[in-house]
Amino acid sequence: MTQPLRSFDELEVGQRFAFGELSLSEAEIIAYATKYDPQPFHTDPEAAKASPLFGGLVASGLHTMGACFGRIMGTGLFSAISLGGNRIDTRWPAPLRPDEVFSLAAVVEELKPSRSRPGMGVAVVRFTGTRVADGVVVIEMVGTHFLRR
Amino acid sequence: MTQPLRSFDELEVGQRFAFGELSLSEAEIIAYATKYDPQPFHTDPEAAKASPLFGGLVASGLHTMGACFGRIMGTGLFSAISLGGNRIDTRWPAPLRPDEVFSLAAVVEELKPSRSRPGMGVAVVRFTGTRVADGVVVIEMVGTHFLRR
Repeated sequence: MTQPLRSFDELEVGQRFAFGELSLSEAEIIAYATKYDPQPFHTDPEAAKASPLFGGLVASGLHTMGACFGRIMGTGLFSAISLGGNRIDTRWPAPLRPDEVFSLAAVVEELKPSRSRPGMGVAVVRFTGTRVADGVVVIEMVGTHFLRR
Repeated sequence: MTQPLRSFDELEVGQRFAFGELSLSEAEIIAYATKYDPQPFHTDPEAAKASPLFGGLVASGLHTMGACFGRIMGTGLFSAISLGGNRIDTRWPAPLRPDEVFSLAAVVEELKPSRSRPGMGVAVVRFTGTRVADGVVVIEMVGTHFLRR
């Protein structure tokens, strides 16, 4: 981890951050999906075997997103400057199965000062989760974040 | 609610669905964000007052997404045909505060049979959450869903 950011103006396009490795257990996957995405391939390991696309239990994509942002915000990198956000475009190119380990990293794609608020900048950041075993991307999120200057 | 869908082929572009009304309590907002989006304006009502964009506690956008999909999947509309999905592009045009009631609806935007899987179709669906008190949109999600034919 780098030091926590103190201003939007410390960021540069192309800058990269690493957030370490994550995984979700079967119990965590089932608990999350039961509340927020109740579908058999997220909640029932036996029924999930009949899933034509997955053939077994996989994490809800919303759960993977939450786990990523839990880690990202938990590191404190953005804590002093994050003011909110208004868009995340998320793709899940491959499913994430229980206990599969993925690494989470980010690259800064766009930076622009806010037109309406002089103390704020808008950063577009691409977050990528890559399965450690084989390099397959399991989640990609392009977020639009409002950051303090 | 309409009857549960039995096939991708029952859908039509422009078709609309209503999923009723939802809200998130302060306690729910704090509990979700503590785990999945730990930022003061999602976890601490007192600290949130200093937020320049929100001025008070607001739901994590990921929580609003989860609450919507919990409702959507919980209705059973898609239960017999949902095979998964690979993208959700989400915007939060306005914040959602504790106990604010929003109504959730969907419109089918695109439908195409899968090229690789004859038993599957791809549906692009726009889900919109609208605050009941004033008609302001608090969440808009464009999801790409794989559905059984």
